[in-house]
Amino acid sequence: MRRINNSLQVDRRLWREDIRGSKAHAAMLRDRDIIPAEDAAAILSGLDAIAAEWAATDGPPLDCRAEDIHMAVEKRLAELIGPAAGRLHTARSRNDQVATDFKLWVRQAADRALLGCTDLGEALLQRSEQHAASIMPGFTHLQVGQPVTLGHHLMAYAAMLLRDHLRFTDIRVERCCGNPLGSAALAGTAFPIDREQTTQELQFGFCTHNSIDAVSDRDFALDYLSAAAICGLHLSRLAEEIVIWASQPFGFVTLPDAWSTGSSIMPQKRNPDAAELIRAKAAQLLAAFQNLGVVLKGLPLAYSKDLQEDKRIVFEAADTLELCLAAMTGMIRDLKFNTERMAEVAGTGHSTATDLADALVREAMVPFREAHHIAGRAVAEAERRGCTLSELSDDALEAIDPRVRRDYLMTPAQSAASRTSFGGTAPNRVREAIAAARGERP
Amino acid sequence: MRRINNSLQVDRRLWREDIRGSKAHAAMLRDRDIIPAEDAAAILSGLDAIAAEWAATDGPPLDCRAEDIHMAVEKRLAELIGPAAGRLHTARSRNDQVATDFKLWVRQAADRALLGCTDLGEALLQRSEQHAASIMPGFTHLQVGQPVTLGHHLMAYAAMLLRDHLRFTDIRVERCCGNPLGSAALAGTAFPIDREQTTQELQFGFCTHNSIDAVSDRDFALDYLSAAAICGLHLSRLAEEIVIWASQPFGFVTLPDAWSTGSSIMPQKRNPDAAELIRAKAAQLLAAFQNLGVVLKGLPLAYSKDLQEDKRIVFEAADTLELCLAAMTGMIRDLKFNTERMAEVAGTGHSTATDLADALVREAMVPFREAHHIAGRAVAEAERRGCTLSELSDDALEAIDPRVRRDYLMTPAQSAASRTSFGGTAPNRVREAIAAARGERP
Amino acid sequence: MRRINNSLQVDRRLWREDIRGSKAHAAMLRDRDIIPAEDAAAILSGLDAIAAEWAATDGPPLDCRAEDIHMAVEKRLAELIGPAAGRLHTARSRNDQVATDFKLWVRQAADRALLGCTDLGEALLQRSEQHAASIMPGFTHLQVGQPVTLGHHLMAYAAMLLRDHLRFTDIRVERCCGNPLGSAALAGTAFPIDREQTTQELQFGFCTHNSIDAVSDRDFALDYLSAAAICGLHLSRLAEEIVIWASQPFGFVTLPDAWSTGSSIMPQKRNPDAAELIRAKAAQLLAAFQNLGVVLKGLPLAYSKDLQEDKRIVFEAADTLELCLAAMTGMIRDLKFNTERMAEVAGTGHSTATDLADALVREAMVPFREAHHIAGRAVAEAERRGCTLSELSDDALEAIDPRVRRDYLMTPAQSAASRTSFGGTAPNRVREAIAAARGERP
Amino acid sequence: MRRINNSLQVDRRLWREDIRGSKAHAAMLRDRDIIPAEDAAAILSGLDAIAAEWAATDGPPLDCRAEDIHMAVEKRLAELIGPAAGRLHTARSRNDQVATDFKLWVRQAADRALLGCTDLGEALLQRSEQHAASIMPGFTHLQVGQPVTLGHHLMAYAAMLLRDHLRFTDIRVERCCGNPLGSAALAGTAFPIDREQTTQELQFGFCTHNSIDAVSDRDFALDYLSAAAICGLHLSRLAEEIVIWASQPFGFVTLPDAWSTGSSIMPQKRNPDAAELIRAKAAQLLAAFQNLGVVLKGLPLAYSKDLQEDKRIVFEAADTLELCLAAMTGMIRDLKFNTERMAEVAGTGHSTATDLADALVREAMVPFREAHHIAGRAVAEAERRGCTLSELSDDALEAIDPRVRRDYLMTPAQSAASRTSFGGTAPNRVREAIAAARGERP
Repeated sequence: MRRINNSLQVDRRLWREDIRGSKAHAAMLRDRDIIPAEDAAAILSGLDAIAAEWAATDGPPLDCRAEDIHMAVEKRLAELIGPAAGRLHTARSRNDQVATDFKLWVRQAADRALLGCTDLGEALLQRSEQHAASIMPGFTHLQVGQPVTLGHHLMAYAAMLLRDHLRFTDIRVERCCGNPLGSAALAGTAFPIDREQTTQELQFGFCTHNSIDAVSDRDFALDYLSAAAICGLHLSRLAEEIVIWASQPFGFVTLPDAWSTGSSIMPQKRNPDAAELIRAKAAQLLAAFQNLGVVLKGLPLAYSKDLQEDKRIVFEAADTLELCLAAMTGMIRDLKFNTERMAEVAGTGHSTATDLADALVREAMVPFREAHHIAGRAVAEAERRGCTLSELSDDALEAIDPRVRRDYLMTPAQSAASRTSFGGTAPNRVREAIAAARGERP
Repeated sequence: MRRINNSLQVDRRLWREDIRGSKAHAAMLRDRDIIPAEDAAAILSGLDAIAAEWAATDGPPLDCRAEDIHMAVEKRLAELIGPAAGRLHTARSRNDQVATDFKLWVRQAADRALLGCTDLGEALLQRSEQHAASIMPGFTHLQVGQPVTLGHHLMAYAAMLLRDHLRFTDIRVERCCGNPLGSAALAGTAFPIDREQTTQELQFGFCTHNSIDAVSDRDFALDYLSAAAICGLHLSRLAEEIVIWASQPFGFVTLPDAWSTGSSIMPQKRNPDAAELIRAKAAQLLAAFQNLGVVLKGLPLAYSKDLQEDKRIVFEAADTLELCLAAMTGMIRDLKFNTERMAEVAGTGHSTATDLADALVREAMVPFREAHHIAGRAVAEAERRGCTLSELSDDALEAIDPRVRRDYLMTPAQSAASRTSFGGTAPNRVREAIAAARGERP
Repeated sequence: MRRINNSLQVDRRLWREDIRGSKAHAAMLRDRDIIPAEDAAAILSGLDAIAAEWAATDGPPLDCRAEDIHMAVEKRLAELIGPAAGRLHTARSRNDQVATDFKLWVRQAADRALLGCTDLGEALLQRSEQHAASIMPGFTHLQVGQPVTLGHHLMAYAAMLLRDHLRFTDIRVERCCGNPLGSAALAGTAFPIDREQTTQELQFGFCTHNSIDAVSDRDFALDYLSAAAICGLHLSRLAEEIVIWASQPFGFVTLPDAWSTGSSIMPQKRNPDAAELIRAKAAQLLAAFQNLGVVLKGLPLAYSKDLQEDKRIVFEAADTLELCLAAMTGMIRDLKFNTERMAEVAGTGHSTATDLADALVREAMVPFREAHHIAGRAVAEAERRGCTLSELSDDALEAIDPRVRRDYLMTPAQSAASRTSFGGTAPNRVREAIAAARGERP
Repeated sequence: MRRINNSLQVDRRLWREDIRGSKAHAAMLRDRDIIPAEDAAAILSGLDAIAAEWAATDGPPLDCRAEDIHMAVEKRLAELIGPAAGRLHTARSRNDQVATDFKLWVRQAADRALLGCTDLGEALLQRSEQHAASIMPGFTHLQVGQPVTLGHHLMAYAAMLLRDHLRFTDIRVERCCGNPLGSAALAGTAFPIDREQTTQELQFGFCTHNSIDAVSDRDFALDYLSAAAICGLHLSRLAEEIVIWASQPFGFVTLPDAWSTGSSIMPQKRNPDAAELIRAKAAQLLAAFQNLGVVLKGLPLAYSKDLQEDKRIVFEAADTLELCLAAMTGMIRDLKFNTERMAEVAGTGHSTATDLADALVREAMVPFREAHHIAGRAVAEAERRGCTLSELSDDALEAIDPRVRRDYLMTPAQSAASRTSFGGTAPNRVREAIAAARGERP
């Protein structure tokens, strides 16, 4: 029973939040004359003393014989200041206390995620800037499609990170802003507490409106886990690309030593371990959302012990997310892009056949579907001759269709440069997008 | 191959969105002189004709020999207006087209979810109003804890629904507002398109910033599924309570005939089938988020066919969510609350022992922990005598502790009424909360 | 990079298996004359010395500056015996080594799960025996259905545990029996190794047939996690029932002190914390299967670093499963069943109406559907009069249908005793089932 | 209510099983003299008539105004044979009936999965045979590792399919073999039924031992879904490889027309749509297991309506699995392997450096770690000169280490051929493995 019930090993990470919440509560009790001022003073200085004590060990000693962090704080406080410690729990219950502590913690986790997204976003912007005009093949179905710029491709990830940033901002600002403190066990309290005061002190946005909901609600944790899972998916897509790009047949990137492992026997070998681990850990983040969701499914109100699982799940997910963001940031900063190889592959697969068709439509007013058939014939002819579209002779072009003009045949770089629609891959558009992401105005 | 590749059976539900998007695209092509005005006119009236045709059958016939909804529209258009139909696909690709269609659909699904949340929220408010002062036991760990009001308990669910509403509003307003149309296959286009025009026409908020991301991104669907899953969890908690409350030993509610099934042999039996199904379907909503997340995990840019799964997943989830919201709304409206039975149970389990302790703290200035020990002794004495706290004799109270006064012993109704802290269960607080939820100011 | 790549903190739990596998490998290399006998002797005694060293700390020191358990062993071996340690890795790679270690570990975890299932099964058998004839209401839809015996209800869980036992036995005997050692990095080896020898030494059943599969396969871990998840679901169902049964309106069980938590203020309160935690942890086990599945989805052959996640997932799941099994066993042993209360509820809800209908069919040859309608009328009449079926007067029975005889009206105990079909709830059938589960023959 | 409660649209697929089970039940009732022989005869011929009627439409008409398949059968039977139909439900309940029907269906699904695995396995064996000696690079971390044979690589998947086959066989033989019929609503029955008779008639292996468990148990469905999910993971890994191999920079395979989609403009383009869809659908199979697991979590005994979700989940999963197996079988049969390109890549990345080290150990008795360092220096030298290991001059070799002999430097084909350990990649070993998989003895 003790083994299954004890949660200190997990929830000791809440120690700062628990002390912070307790201080706000004690000050409010004092200001509302619910506890004597001198007891409040003892409590407040006692809590400060505990914070100082535990700063070195980042939390209470595991052998402190308390079943959870709240009891650890209360026990230590009683040792330090005596019976006055007993007044701290007036008009409060572990149920609203843990909801408050945990929400404060999730808020901080959202802040850390925001920093992580910003760092990775900045790394992506820098590399995009360097490669705003570097040509690479754009893939669909992992088949060479149309030429794009590497900067444009990287900016796709910056766009994802921007959405992640928006999501974590919402969590920070909208989802974690209700203060549950003062909801007591589940019904509120008859003490004349001032919830506005603790709300301000703890920098929440408002007091939760329903005490039963306040102690049972873990939506804020689900919201965090959902955002973490989606962010993890973005990272996994980038990680997958790095793994594929680093494979010899691609050869698009060379992994820096710091972000790969070799082997004593093959010094040239650079296994993309970090990328693989990031890819794999996206699964953990998805499973974390699932895990908490399943815990909550069909759980009657109000507090049930099932909720104790919330912290293990979120703590592990936050650690993983932060590690993945940091690792990906380092990798992106240090990755060597083999732009020549990329450009070479961009020229394969008749990747500019669409440009030929579009030119026929645009310049020769050929209807779209007909233009596509002409381009198709050109590709078939090039395939037959084993050459690129540009290498087709004038006679061959003429034979395909008299409306085909040589200047409709683009190089990959020309193709990319031509795609100047907003959000398109043309280098200037990429530079604009980078500037916009940095908040610069044209 | 045909069986695995054909998606018309699923994506035919996008027919309205596909026609709407195509009309916006055609009008823009015309206004930018990319296609001739007369062809545009033919296209627009052809699309209207298709819409009129399919309104009756809610989509194209399944045997129309098109592999997906986009081809079905294009094929029918060609039948109706001939070769001019071929111009519609200028400066567009199926990749940006399907992203646009699907985002429009998800936006509508969010709207429907908002309506569903509003309806259920209103039903909860009405029933809360009726029962703002009805006493029931508040449970923690499914153990009788402190007395609460039924209105307060129901308002806990209204609070959850309010968060769901916020979440779906975010999806409506923030997550589905980037217009991908004009991103073409993945690289943008060289045609001089005007993406702002289609953005306004389709009531998007802005043009997506990166064409590669635009065709690969399904965050908006994940956001919808996450919100749906969380909403489903809330419903499952309420459903579980209804199932438990309807069980004979509880007897808290009587299910209306319309929302239960009986049996020919036991006419009094009312199985809470609808509540059970709602509870079970929360699992489907959780699985839907998981399913799409796993599809996206490790998927290289840009479009891959894997993304075709997005629609099946979201369509099924949206149907389920809407059905569950509607069913729960009906059930809540019609549920008969057996308030006498609730009040009876609220009086068991010495549920007012906390009130006694709090009164000792508040009135007799007994320190909190000591007060709790006194209350504990009173409970033990009542247990020993097999009576309630109120039934203890004066002598017995005196023996427990001379500071205990009879008027510290509350009835459940007094207990609930005393918990007047903001968000607390006192009837007046509940009425305030209902008014606030309706946007009424005091 | 170091933080994301280092796995020692997790995989140090493999230390016994790593040493065991290495000893088998070294002995085989010696017997096949691949390494000199004296080096082999040094390696073997060095490995024994390490095992002795680490027994106290249950693994290598975390600060041993090795990135994983394999390097920790190799490094320590080199410190102890010098360069000869370098021969141990001949004809082996970390890829087949870790697959071997991990499979050995999972095999042991299956053994522990088997013990856990046996213990819980035995506890269930004992309690079923005590209560083979105790009457309780059988529920469908959590509505009182037909009377059953408590022993029969508990034996339903014994039946689930028996299936779990079968599943873990399969894992032990069929899923973990292929020896991957000797598959080397992925292609096998040119050294003249004898895989049969290590297979026998490590008590595997056969040598894996394909070296690429052998280093990439984690089916055995998925099989274990699937079995653990299903077992967790069984426990969660029992846990849910305990939570509901312990709730005051039910009052079917009293939780022993050791398996509940109270509060200083409400000494009579017994929160079913352990049951709630077991219920919640079923979610973790489900998530674990999901997590590893998602890691493996779409992973190209052969070894990828993603696989490193396997151990964290399985270790956590195994710890949780074992804890839940042990906690549930303790709880079942100590649970106090309030059989009077159960019997009382079994008499409510006209739970014997089906018996009346069946008797009409059986004794009076009334067709089944008609018999059901007669029973329905009897229930309606009893409802109207606010009495039980047995309390209906002879006149009332006559008025319902002349074929109804008083002796068709059963008590709950008679009803349960009459259900003597194989697998039915009659006390004798329950005792038979207990005997059969114990392997006793009649 | 009707919309959420009606299940006919889903469970009509059980019509054959429902009729089969009903026939077995009716015959048993007749043989035990529970119902009159003439009624039994009418029932049996009526059920046959229904089966004949519905064969054309594969089930009852959806507008038959029955809420589920059981009622649809019963209703039609009453229409056909009148009141005698009412006797069919004697000593039976919908709870044991649906458990029986569904288990019969899952058993058939397992049979279909077995066939699917066999077909794909056979396709893999055939292609492996053709390519037992074709050289390709073996990858770890998607980095070129050691040369392997294509036949060996494909046989890795055959090994996975063999495990899948074992898993589905277990389901067929061990998990679906308990007959629940006769468990009635939950308590068994007082009618003198003969469960052995229906067990034999329905080809089950034994009668379930506990009636409460029998109507609540869905383990057999979880087992099926778990096996389906794992099989789906195997397919997803192969699908991922096909997608990567078909990418231009790899160019390992050319997709047959039948298994790829092109575009009107790029006739040479072959998108691996089927492979992508198979990869994506693995997510659906994983989600299905999760979905049913979450439905079952914390569900009290006995039958609850939540269980109705089981059929939707399993039916969809079975359809998907069968489709994926069939599509993959077709693809594997028709895939064109570009063995020259594979061999070319196998020669890159100094893939035979390990062979050099091993040869030094084996032939020159150099200790393993030292040998590895020598090979490492050779690779570094080759890298510096931009040549392969084989192209290093004699002087260069001498300078690296005098013990290095030219004949230690292998070609990829020599390397693969040398790996003759059991389960290794040498062509002869591959042919042996194919023969073994076919049950041929040497």
